[in-house]
Parts: sequence; C-alpha cells; structure tokens
Amino acid sequence: MEKMQAVVKTEPGKGASYTDRAVPEVSDFDVLIRVTSASICGSDVHLYNWETWSESRIQLPRIMGHEMAGEVVEVGKRVKSVKVGDYVSAETHLYCGRCYACLHGRMEVCLNLKILGFDRDGAFAEYISLPESVVWKNDPTIPKEWASVQEPLGNAVDTVLVQDVTAKTILITGCGPVGLLAVGVAKASGASTIFATDINDARLELALKMGATDILNPNKTDVVETIMDFTHGAGVEMLIEMSGNPNALADGLRALTPGGCASLLGLFKEKQVPIDLNRHVVLKGIRMFGITGRKIFSTWYKTTQLLSSGQLNLDPVITHRFALSDFEKGMELMAEGSCGKIVLFPPD
Amino acid sequence: MEKMQAVVKTEPGKGASYTDRAVPEVSDFDVLIRVTSASICGSDVHLYNWETWSESRIQLPRIMGHEMAGEVVEVGKRVKSVKVGDYVSAETHLYCGRCYACLHGRMEVCLNLKILGFDRDGAFAEYISLPESVVWKNDPTIPKEWASVQEPLGNAVDTVLVQDVTAKTILITGCGPVGLLAVGVAKASGASTIFATDINDARLELALKMGATDILNPNKTDVVETIMDFTHGAGVEMLIEMSGNPNALADGLRALTPGGCASLLGLFKEKQVPIDLNRHVVLKGIRMFGITGRKIFSTWYKTTQLLSSGQLNLDPVITHRFALSDFEKGMELMAEGSCGKIVLFPPD
Amino acid sequence: MEKMQAVVKTEPGKGASYTDRAVPEVSDFDVLIRVTSASICGSDVHLYNWETWSESRIQLPRIMGHEMAGEVVEVGKRVKSVKVGDYVSAETHLYCGRCYACLHGRMEVCLNLKILGFDRDGAFAEYISLPESVVWKNDPTIPKEWASVQEPLGNAVDTVLVQDVTAKTILITGCGPVGLLAVGVAKASGASTIFATDINDARLELALKMGATDILNPNKTDVVETIMDFTHGAGVEMLIEMSGNPNALADGLRALTPGGCASLLGLFKEKQVPIDLNRHVVLKGIRMFGITGRKIFSTWYKTTQLLSSGQLNLDPVITHRFALSDFEKGMELMAEGSCGKIVLFPPD
Amino acid sequence: MEKMQAVVKTEPGKGASYTDRAVPEVSDFDVLIRVTSASICGSDVHLYNWETWSESRIQLPRIMGHEMAGEVVEVGKRVKSVKVGDYVSAETHLYCGRCYACLHGRMEVCLNLKILGFDRDGAFAEYISLPESVVWKNDPTIPKEWASVQEPLGNAVDTVLVQDVTAKTILITGCGPVGLLAVGVAKASGASTIFATDINDARLELALKMGATDILNPNKTDVVETIMDFTHGAGVEMLIEMSGNPNALADGLRALTPGGCASLLGLFKEKQVPIDLNRHVVLKGIRMFGITGRKIFSTWYKTTQLLSSGQLNLDPVITHRFALSDFEKGMELMAEGSCGKIVLFPPD
Repeated sequence: MEKMQAVVKTEPGKGASYTDRAVPEVSDFDVLIRVTSASICGSDVHLYNWETWSESRIQLPRIMGHEMAGEVVEVGKRVKSVKVGDYVSAETHLYCGRCYACLHGRMEVCLNLKILGFDRDGAFAEYISLPESVVWKNDPTIPKEWASVQEPLGNAVDTVLVQDVTAKTILITGCGPVGLLAVGVAKASGASTIFATDINDARLELALKMGATDILNPNKTDVVETIMDFTHGAGVEMLIEMSGNPNALADGLRALTPGGCASLLGLFKEKQVPIDLNRHVVLKGIRMFGITGRKIFSTWYKTTQLLSSGQLNLDPVITHRFALSDFEKGMELMAEGSCGKIVLFPPD
Repeated sequence: MEKMQAVVKTEPGKGASYTDRAVPEVSDFDVLIRVTSASICGSDVHLYNWETWSESRIQLPRIMGHEMAGEVVEVGKRVKSVKVGDYVSAETHLYCGRCYACLHGRMEVCLNLKILGFDRDGAFAEYISLPESVVWKNDPTIPKEWASVQEPLGNAVDTVLVQDVTAKTILITGCGPVGLLAVGVAKASGASTIFATDINDARLELALKMGATDILNPNKTDVVETIMDFTHGAGVEMLIEMSGNPNALADGLRALTPGGCASLLGLFKEKQVPIDLNRHVVLKGIRMFGITGRKIFSTWYKTTQLLSSGQLNLDPVITHRFALSDFEKGMELMAEGSCGKIVLFPPD
Repeated sequence: MEKMQAVVKTEPGKGASYTDRAVPEVSDFDVLIRVTSASICGSDVHLYNWETWSESRIQLPRIMGHEMAGEVVEVGKRVKSVKVGDYVSAETHLYCGRCYACLHGRMEVCLNLKILGFDRDGAFAEYISLPESVVWKNDPTIPKEWASVQEPLGNAVDTVLVQDVTAKTILITGCGPVGLLAVGVAKASGASTIFATDINDARLELALKMGATDILNPNKTDVVETIMDFTHGAGVEMLIEMSGNPNALADGLRALTPGGCASLLGLFKEKQVPIDLNRHVVLKGIRMFGITGRKIFSTWYKTTQLLSSGQLNLDPVITHRFALSDFEKGMELMAEGSCGKIVLFPPD
Repeated sequence: MEKMQAVVKTEPGKGASYTDRAVPEVSDFDVLIRVTSASICGSDVHLYNWETWSESRIQLPRIMGHEMAGEVVEVGKRVKSVKVGDYVSAETHLYCGRCYACLHGRMEVCLNLKILGFDRDGAFAEYISLPESVVWKNDPTIPKEWASVQEPLGNAVDTVLVQDVTAKTILITGCGPVGLLAVGVAKASGASTIFATDINDARLELALKMGATDILNPNKTDVVETIMDFTHGAGVEMLIEMSGNPNALADGLRALTPGGCASLLGLFKEKQVPIDLNRHVVLKGIRMFGITGRKIFSTWYKTTQLLSSGQLNLDPVITHRFALSDFEKGMELMAEGSCGKIVLFPPD
C-alpha cells in the first residue's frame, strides 16, 4: 500500500498532525487526484481548534481540507466524464442525489449531505479520492491557486447573485476572504457603489483592491449614517452579510432600503441571533436569503467564466502561500484574521 | 358645517369616544365616501389601548379605522377615475409617489408612508375623505362586509403568493383573522396540504372551515415532529408566519424544508426576535420574505377576482357584526382573541 | 429467453404490429417493470403514421409507447432507490446528466436527450426496462390509469405554472388531452376565469368538466372580441397554447394583455410559424415560454400532490380504455381527435 | 405669444420643416423645459420618411423628437417634485396611470399610451412642455449629450437585464445605436463573452469599442457555426435581438442554448415574422421577452448609476453632433445606417 503525506486530525483537542497515510483506493465510481493546491477555509480552523460541535460531528482520524485543485491520476471503472490527466477541482458537498432537495435540483442543501474533509477524508494531502459526481473539470487557463479558491468563490458568487446587482448600490459587511471575493464578484457584476465594512483596516485595504468604492470601519465611522447620507435617505439596495457578526447584520438591515434584499452567508458564533424583525424585515418588505454551498454545477460555470475571462483577479485575496507541511502557520494566521486566503502546496 | 358620528381617539390612554365630528371637506384631489362597513384590525386595538408607540406617533384627536367599504358621495374637481355613486374601498397606505420606493413600484413601503386612521382621519365614521390615488372601485357583486375585509385579505394574498403554492405542502402559524384569510387564500391557490397552528382551538375550527387540511395546537402536539412524520423528514415547502410569536416562528423554520421559503406578516411584541440563523436560515438555504401592506394595485385585482369568482368565502372569518356605536364590544373581543374578523356598520 | 407481447414498429410506413419480443434484460443500473397501464400520446400517433421525420430519427424495430405505470419485478445490482414490488412510472426523457443543460438542472432539454419509445424500446409491452435515473415511485393511492397519465399531466403542470395563475384570467387554446389536463391544473391552481377554445365541441364539453369557466369555438365565435368584452379591453393575463395551430396562437397573442405571459406547449405542423412580433410580442412587452417535458423531478412531486390530494380528477379526460392488443382502435381515435386520453392495458 | 424654433412635420410625405412655433403654455401639472440636447431615434426617421403607419397615427402639424435633456424654466401650480433650474430628461411614454397595465406597475405598456413627438409635441425644439409625471431629474455630473441618450439607453438596459448576464456568454444581433448601447450595458453587467453581429463593419468596430469580445459579420462568417464551436456545442446563454432582421433572429435562436433566454427589442419591417417555433422555442424550452420602453422609473435609476459611476462610456456611440437646424443631415445619416447616435443642439 502506497503512502502519502497528509494533514490529519488524529485526536480530540486543538491541532493536527502532518503524517503519512495510505493513498486512497479508488472504487468503481471514484476518481483519484494528485492534489496540487489546497486552500484553508474558516471551517478548517474551527475543526483544527476542535470547537464544541466537532466532538459530535467528526469521526477520527480524518484528513482535513476541502478547497483544492489537482490532476487526475486514476479513474474507477464506471467513471465516464473524467479521464487521467484532467485538471480538476472538487465540489465539496457530497450529495445523495435522491432526497427531496436533490430531486428539486437543490443538491447544496441535500438532506443527507456529507462534507469533504469533515465526513470523508479531505484535500490537505498528496492524493484525494472523490466520487465522479463532485468532480469539476477546470479550465486549463486558470492557475492552480485560483482553481483551489473557486470553491469559496462559488459561495461569493451565489451570495452576490441572488438578484441582479448591476447599477445597484450595495453593502458588504465583513471583508474576510469570502467577503473580499464577494467584493470582486459584485464589482465584476456591475454594482455601481460597493460599501465594504470590517474592523480590520488591512482587510479594508484589500477590499479597495478588489473593487470596493467605499470602505468603512464601524469602530471609527457610523456605517448607517454614512450610507443614509450617501443615498439621500433611501439606503442600499442590497446587503451581503459575510461577517457573522450580529451588530454588522443589524446595521446592514438598518442601512437597507425598503423592499431591498439581504443575502446571508456568514455564520454566527451566537446560536440565537436577535433581529428586529418588525422594523427591519416585516414592515420594510425585505427579502432575506440564506446561502450555503454552491449550485451544482451552475455556479461552477460562473466561477470558471469570471476567472478565465479575466474579469476577476484573485491575486489580492491570496495573501499567503505555504508548503502543506507548514499548514500550522496558516491556521494561526487565519485564527488571528490577519490574512486573506492562504494556499497550501503538497510536495510534488 | 355638517356633522357626522365617528369613533375618535380624543386623548391619551385606553379607550375612544363615539362622538360627532364635522363631515370632512373635499379638496380637488379627494373623494368623499359614505362609509357602509368598516372592520377592526389588530392595529386598531393597539391604538385603542394606547400602547407605547402611540404617544410618539399619533396626533390627537384622530378618527380611527381603515378597513372599509362605502359609496362615493362627492368628488374633487381634479378627480378623474371615480364618480359619485361608485362602490369603493380604501387602500390604507397613503404613499407619496415620488420617493425611491414609489418610483420602483413599491408604494407599500413608501419612504414617506402615512396610514389611514393613524396619520389621517379614518373610517370608523359616517363619512371619510380619501385621496383619489388610494380609492379602489369594488366589484358590485362583492357584499359590503367582504369588501371591507379586502384590505387584510390583500395582506394574506401577498403573504401566501410570494411564490407559487400550487401542489405544495405548507404551514400557516397563527389563525387570527389574517391567518384564517391566509388559509383560505392558500386553499384557493391549490396548496395540497395546509397545516394550520394556533393555541386557540376555536380558531383552529375556523381554520378547518377555511380549508386547512390539518390543524395543530402546539400546546397539545409537537408541531415539528408531526410535520416531519407527515413529510417523511423533508419538511414543509413554505412557512406562512401570522402569529407574531417567536416560538411559532422557530418551530416553523425548523419544520421548513431546506431550500424552502418563509413569508412573515405577523408583528412581534418583542423588539428583538432571536433566530437560529445558522441552522434555520443560512445552512438550510432558506428565503425569508417580510410582507407589509398590499401591492398597489395589483393585489387588489387579485382580491377582487378571488371574491367575485366565488373561489373564496369570507363568511367563516367574519364572526361578529356590530353597529359602529358598539365598537367597544369589538375592541374587547379582539383583545381577548375570541373572534375572527369583526365588521362595524355606521348608521344609514 | 422469455417472451412478451408488445406493440412494435417493425417497418417504415403506417401501422405497427402486436407481436412477441424478448423480455428485456436488466443491466446493473436498470429496473425491469411489468407494465400495468400505458397511455397514447399524440407523438405515438405521429410515429404510427410514419410521418416525415420518422425515417431519419427512428431505428427499427422499435417498441412504441412511453406514458406508463407498472410494478418493479427486477432491479440491477447497482440500483439503490427502487426495489422489487415498487409501483412506478417513467420520466420519458432519458438525460445524459453531464452536458451543459443537465449540469444547470435543465435535464428536460439535455443536449443528448433520448426519448423512451423512440430512441429506446418503450412501454406498449408487458415489460419495460428503464434506467433507475428516470424511475418515479408512485403514490400508492393513485390509480394506475391516472399514474400512466402523469407524464403528460406534468407537461400541463409546467405549461400552466410558469407563473402564478391564482386569481388570474387565462386562455387555453386547444382542448386535446393535454389541453384538458391544463384546464384541470389551472382550475386547481386557482385561476379565476378560464377561457378554453377548440373547434371540436365534444372536447369543449370535456373542458367544462375539467373546470373551464367559458368555452369558445373559434369557428362559431370571435374569441378575441369575446375576451376583450369580458375583460373590458384589458385582455387575459396568460395564454396557454396547446393547439399547435397558428391561428389559435395569433388570436391568443391578440387576446393577451400587455405585459402578459404566453406559455407554449403545442407543436405546429408548420415548420415556420408566422408571428406579428412587433405588435404581439415586442411592443406589448410579452414574455413567451417554450415548454417541453417535465422538470426532473420537481414536476413529478407536483403531479403526485395534485392527484393524491384529490385536487385533480382525471376521469373526465380518460375517455377510452382498451386492451393493449386493441391499440389500433386507440390510434384511429386519436388521429380523428374524437377522444380524450386513451389508456391501454397489457395482459395480466 | 413667444416664439421658438422647432423641427415640425407640417404635411404628409417625406421631410420636415425648421420653422417657428409658439413656446408651449404650461398647465397646472406641466413643466416647461429649455431643450439643451436632443438625439435622433430610428422612429423619428420613420416619421420623417412618412412611412405607411404615419398617416393613420399622426395628427399634423407635430413637433418631432423625444430623446432629450434640458433645464426647467417654468413649472405649473400643482407641480411638486421639480423646480425651475432642475436639469431633466423625459420619459417619453406618456401613461394614463389608471388602466390595468398602469395599476400593475407596467406603465411602459399602458393601454392608453401616448408617445412624445408622435402624439404630443416633442423635443426637437427650443422648448418643450411635459407632464410632471414623466420628468426625470438628471444627475448633474452626466453631460447633456449622454443625458439625452439615456432614453434609448434605458431600452438597452431593460433588454439586457431581463435576466442576470454576469459570467454568461451572450449574443447581440444588430449594432445600430441601441445595439451598441446594449453591448456597453452587457459589458458593464459582467457578461464574460459578448458576440456582436452586424452586416456593417464600421458598426462592428464601434461594438468592439463598447466592449464586445467577438464581432461577426453574417455576410462573411457563419454566425451559428462560430458560436457552436466556441461554446463546444452548448450555444449562447442569452440572445439580445436588436436588428429587426428575421434572419438574425433565426440565427440567434439557433445559436441559443436549450433553456436559454431571448430578449427582443428590434422592430421588424415584416408584419409577420416566420419562426421555427417547434425547434427553436418549444422543444428547446426557450424564454422569449418582448421589450418596449423603460420601466418607469426603476430603469432610469439604473441608467443614472451606470453613467454617473463611470461604468459606461457613451462617447463611442455618439458619432455625430449637429445644430438642431441641421437635423436633415442627421436624418439622412440615420437612414443610411452609417452612424451611431446623433445628437442635435438647439440654439442657446
């Protein structure tokens, strides 16, 4: 049995090991991929820190990671659409294909959803095995770092494009990696004015690079007042919530125009988030969209087009590059919030 | 100056007076209407009880009431679309027509909204004056009691029809008058299974009459479990929240299928309503719509069709009829919750 | 090799044979079904008559038929969601699952579409083999005749429900079997006024039974004038075109209100259909939807709900029942147009 | 009575006169505007040439023109939202505000529509009087030439944005002035690949300047084949028809992906346009939108944002500038098709 290096959560508690594991076997419907790039998601950090939900959810040991790109090195007997040598990425939502949600084309909220790197061994490794049904063939012109970031980019695409933003004034709360990607998507989609907020000025600077027209630090500026002045009291036409912060959400809803639309991707530490439903949702006639995952695969067509056409440049978002063995540096930077997206590279 | 009888909020504190007032004068753009029926809204009861918001909002004295039907007896010089003798009702949202919301066709959330019976003298009177812009010509086949109830019926129509409910399984939480109307609208619109919940069994009985297929009292039954059993774990496809109760909302969101839609009309006593946004909105990919008022006037076309075609029978919802002078009986019944819709009749 | 009886198109030219064929073998991903009911589609008649397109499209011999219900008698090794004894029907669009359309959830217009009974052996037989991916598990309360008719019913559902019809005034042109189903769907969905047109008075009588509120024979009545009178010059809010007749389409577009919606399912004999695009589409701001097939499988959920809830009664549409061996009687009746839906029953 | 210079259609037949007329009087609801720029629409040329429909539609004499910008010099007593000195443009669809379409927010297809410069004196004059209800206050940063072109730009906005085009591959057939504006709008909205077609190579060059990624002359290239090669057989996701040419429409529909969307603004010389409805609309599941006019006023908000934000540069489209008295040069150039948009300037 061949061996490979991988980042493995071996036991409860903070941390993970860089250790060797067997290269996965390939069933009839699976594809074996040599990972060439993998990026760190906020949820990886939660697992690394072994936050409270981990115990009940995760079966150890588990190879971590799900954002990735790589090259197909072996395909199962029943695999039809992918061949050895293909340059691919992974849709990380492993869907059942037969539940109510799947049969309505909503595979991203499959009733039996499994997630790569949590419920099945993941991508922080030299090799990964994936069911053909979640393999996406990359456009060869897209660099491997960008290809790995397509998965969270897909989240940004779905959050921004729940409605047309062209010629609109919008607010993006939270400029972590996905918030920054959302700024880029909104810019590419023709939003006329993009307010971006964060309490971290370095991230706000990145937001400017991604196309924000106005950056606001809520610790220094009254966000709602600034927006109301700018819009002559009308408010923004769309709120894109990327912070998972209840205050940011509350301010965002306050700044939203009556009849406007709020799109929520950020996850909250609080189990119960207080909302002034009467004033900010019901009486203002607001539509609020919860977004999770990507539409399979219509969203991937969009990420491909945005990247291969040159409409979207991910370089400002990718702030750090490490060897896979240095994954701990990445985890620390992510926990501190002093970074954009971090890409890891397994040994060749 | 001619006199008329009216229900007037004359001073702060609980209560109102049945007293005489001048018949309103008619400006160039106004229409004078002899009120033939008027119904009590929950918000009338809040004003009657002089709840905390009243002091800051309401200028006294104020003639109460906004749900109504009547006959045009005089029209201003500039009025074009209505004539003496027309049988009409009132859209109660007085919109400015020039703000951002109005110019986007969202007059129901006008930035300068005034509400009949709160910001301008209302309909619990023998006569009312209305701007032509909010006068709706009733279909003559609709009885005057039903015509008065069209306004809250419009709320029910907009709440239910935010998306197609035909052949769907839905949950309506709260069977007060508007909840009951929503049951009727959902039935007329082809919903296949309509779960209706309330803690008042008498209201649940009315829900059955309006077309609910299953009634559930959350004090006696586990609503979420019942629905999950019925739907084999998939959940309902739509939640229509009419109770303004945070527990009903939480249960409703729990019972909602991933990718489903929640439509919220009920107003909450709580300024801040706690919501498990992660689990019930974001990760489930839920769309949530705040609904207020009626689309002006597309909703009125729909209420007209539903009533004149015989698709919807409002009789089970209208539980009490009183002379206008007996309005206090109505206010008490509404405060107790032991009624459906109550219609008042001014003297001929 | 076991034998079965089947209706087989054996050679070019009009007609088909009732003859014996081998019971199909079952591959790993297939399901073998004993057919208990099968209904005749207009396209079956075109094939039976060997119309011009047949030569280039159809490879002979071919077992005809695609609308069906039956019982699973054997499943392939890889089949997961269906078991022996299940009561099932067939989605007749065999989609590839990997093309641009399929990966956008539009399997009904798959770029590599194959159709049951045309490109693969069909359902006018004692047994049929189907890929698991197109097998739909029927609700056991739905009678087998109705279950067979679910497939065209799905067409009617998608044609009618391209937009909400509740409380709307609509026009359905053409009362062949699918037109009649559309009348039923529109009625169940809360359309207030349903004009139905056909040149065959017997079919118009069936339309009345299915819920049409007004029936019009264009050979006897001016359809456009009648509708314009009824709607006070506004026109109908939706056109549902089921006739495939250019005059019916032209009249329908004339009768459509500005800003209205036309939904087209009927296929035209004419390769080029003349349309007054300026007046009837562009300057009126019309939306026109081409409909083909069913959404896989969201439409099937709707047909199931409509039938199992009792909202829709298919009995008036099913005018004839024959033994499978008498299929020729059915083909003749269909060609004459003097029938609704015809259901065939294979020998037990 | 004060006099002004104006372009007047005084009698049947080709041509118009540059002559003096009385400055319009201002009713209570009207606004008098000093015209500072006015641009020529294709429909002005049709009227100038006195095409067949003119006789029955136009009452002579008539001041021509409707695309314009100017300064308010007088307001009627009842006018509320505009004041002397305001910089404004005209929505050219004079809607009634009380018909079925208007009461559904579809004023652009008002049942009693009047059009500026056709049914009421127009903008090719030193002064124009407009009802307040169609006056749009311009952003002061938008140059007067661009402000005049906002009206056809609004057509382009509505045609392109019937659905989200971000990250899509689209085809725009016809690169006359509005086609060129559509290219610019599609580019600003994030379309990834924009095929533009015209038989005039000069116009194709302008299309490149406006952001087309690929230009195709159907007299030299097989448009459908080129697109099918580029999209690997899938076709474009959206067709924007701006040519009014039946062949362009047919090719466009052929090049459209199954499930795609066609948006039609171009008007056809042919009263009946032949369409292969079976293959190109019904069986492909196409949605087709007829577009006319602008949404009042949501579209104007979008044109304002696109222009004031710098997202859209109209300079390449504006190919000629003439004194109003030289209008005949403009009419000739437009008739020849050897121009983009032509702006006229009345004397100061």
